[in-house]
Amino acid sequence: MFCTLFTANSYAQEAIEIGKSYTIKSRVLNEDRSIQIYLPTGYTDTKYPNQKYPVIYLLDGESNFNYLTAYVDKLSRYPYPSIPEMIIVGVVNTNRTRDLTPTVVTKDNMSKDQAAKIKGENGGNDNFFKYLKDEVFTYVDTNYRTLDYKILIGHSFGGITALNNMLNYTDMFNAYIVHDPSIWWDNKVMLREYTSRIKQDFKHRKLFLTQVGESENKGHLNDHYGAIKEFDKLMSTTPHPSLTYKYVAYEGEDHGSIPLKGNLDGLRFVFDGYRINFKDLKTNSNLLKDTFENLSKEMHYDFKPTEKYLDTVIKYFNTNGDKETADKVTEYKQSLYSL
Amino acid sequence: MFCTLFTANSYAQEAIEIGKSYTIKSRVLNEDRSIQIYLPTGYTDTKYPNQKYPVIYLLDGESNFNYLTAYVDKLSRYPYPSIPEMIIVGVVNTNRTRDLTPTVVTKDNMSKDQAAKIKGENGGNDNFFKYLKDEVFTYVDTNYRTLDYKILIGHSFGGITALNNMLNYTDMFNAYIVHDPSIWWDNKVMLREYTSRIKQDFKHRKLFLTQVGESENKGHLNDHYGAIKEFDKLMSTTPHPSLTYKYVAYEGEDHGSIPLKGNLDGLRFVFDGYRINFKDLKTNSNLLKDTFENLSKEMHYDFKPTEKYLDTVIKYFNTNGDKETADKVTEYKQSLYSL
Repeated sequence: MFCTLFTANSYAQEAIEIGKSYTIKSRVLNEDRSIQIYLPTGYTDTKYPNQKYPVIYLLDGESNFNYLTAYVDKLSRYPYPSIPEMIIVGVVNTNRTRDLTPTVVTKDNMSKDQAAKIKGENGGNDNFFKYLKDEVFTYVDTNYRTLDYKILIGHSFGGITALNNMLNYTDMFNAYIVHDPSIWWDNKVMLREYTSRIKQDFKHRKLFLTQVGESENKGHLNDHYGAIKEFDKLMSTTPHPSLTYKYVAYEGEDHGSIPLKGNLDGLRFVFDGYRINFKDLKTNSNLLKDTFENLSKEMHYDFKPTEKYLDTVIKYFNTNGDKETADKVTEYKQSLYSL
Repeated sequence: MFCTLFTANSYAQEAIEIGKSYTIKSRVLNEDRSIQIYLPTGYTDTKYPNQKYPVIYLLDGESNFNYLTAYVDKLSRYPYPSIPEMIIVGVVNTNRTRDLTPTVVTKDNMSKDQAAKIKGENGGNDNFFKYLKDEVFTYVDTNYRTLDYKILIGHSFGGITALNNMLNYTDMFNAYIVHDPSIWWDNKVMLREYTSRIKQDFKHRKLFLTQVGESENKGHLNDHYGAIKEFDKLMSTTPHPSLTYKYVAYEGEDHGSIPLKGNLDGLRFVFDGYRINFKDLKTNSNLLKDTFENLSKEMHYDFKPTEKYLDTVIKYFNTNGDKETADKVTEYKQSLYSL
């Protein structure tokens, strides 16, 4: 909430605010760039001033930031979080086609439908990744309490950008949520690159890929639809041992709406195994420890429950007269947080 | 956006704001009550100062307002809206169990699990509906440009409240989106009432009902789950000619997460038939007229495309050199808007 006003009718009015937008001069791109920042509810809790959070980097921020902040808020709520509380960084476009395409092409070597989607410069992914890494990551990690676990979300041109990133800049992000990506780009350049390098070390990344359902495969979208199917076929038939992959097709969604359901499922896919029924601690006091050890092993990143979550659980058992379980969780908490 | 700050680091900072919250003294409930208001993007477009909008009344506003505003924004975007731009009014709880239950019960006549969900007063739906109608509707219709088409969205206790409203206050809303409602309440009082009055005149309302998938039917939720199944069975086997009904079960969603996908599908269900491919006007110049005539007939409410949408379409055809189609759409627009 930003400020409170009282009017003549004596009612209180407050702005409903979900984040802040910052505009900063980019040296790499030589232009002003805006990013949107969402901080999770617990971020400002003064009782936990050292809590750090994973970060979601969201391409096409202007189209996706608002609902994504609500998803993270809802799915991460105590006492039954399916995902951790996270910081969201929405990257707002200036020249979308320039930044969110992997290779430079001319309109001559693509179909009329494809050419219609291109306006001006293109193929600037490398430079855009440099901007993300050198400027956005630096800004976010300097100004906020971040964990070094990063998720990249991209849709359409943002989707092909994410796939390019995973193949060629594998160290930048830990997981990718990719919606209806423009794999048709440059005669399916990404499909070709993945085909020839599918056995490279993907460093235990996770990839959630979505596509619209069969019924949306209209004539003018044939290239688009078919190329994603080919990509999924490659993934489904060729071993890629250090990459966890899931593909979902959504009947009833179109190219524009698919990130809405897709991001909900994608976030839960990335954190598959995170959710527990804490009440089961009564009969299985190792539940939290086992869950987070398994999760960390699966995700190749050391995740642990937040202090605030553990305090919530301890309080529950104390309030319900189960001091034994409360003490065991307290002991577990101390093993994690009292250094 | 609320205000812009420039810091020493010389970057611009803006709040990302999605609505406003108003706190007003309720005479009916004799307490301060907050409502959240979202206005669609076009609302402040000075070129269309007379445009009016349907209104969504959203129960449990504090849990659902943020993502719902983003859904309406995304699904109503030109040039391919699936739903109209709408105003959203989130109703924020003070005493949820008091306001959002249909009948007064004591803990004696329910199971232990059920009794655990009840805290203090209950059964205050009638009074709550009086608050909605006399105070909230009046406030909203006085202060905003509203159409007299209202949708009620409710979840859990909010869901049983919506079903009660449709049966006993049928004139208040035109459509209902109901998620995982607490039909178990008071020995399934709503199921009993619907069973005995299923043939009443529902005045062409629409009802979209959701439930979690079979796999979420855990032991402690048996009553809850089973009662909704019974309600659906009633609706599926007994004629209800003046009510359009759809039921969807969501595998993979739980009681808390179900409104996320459910509201997306629910809004599109209410406005089924709204979306068109305006480019088809080239070969079928009656497409808009036919679509909105059919829609209005189906929905028993006179919907028409907004002036702004029509201007968008006219501009497209003019820009693409198809003056003939542009003129036909202009003619249609004049038939609707030049009085």
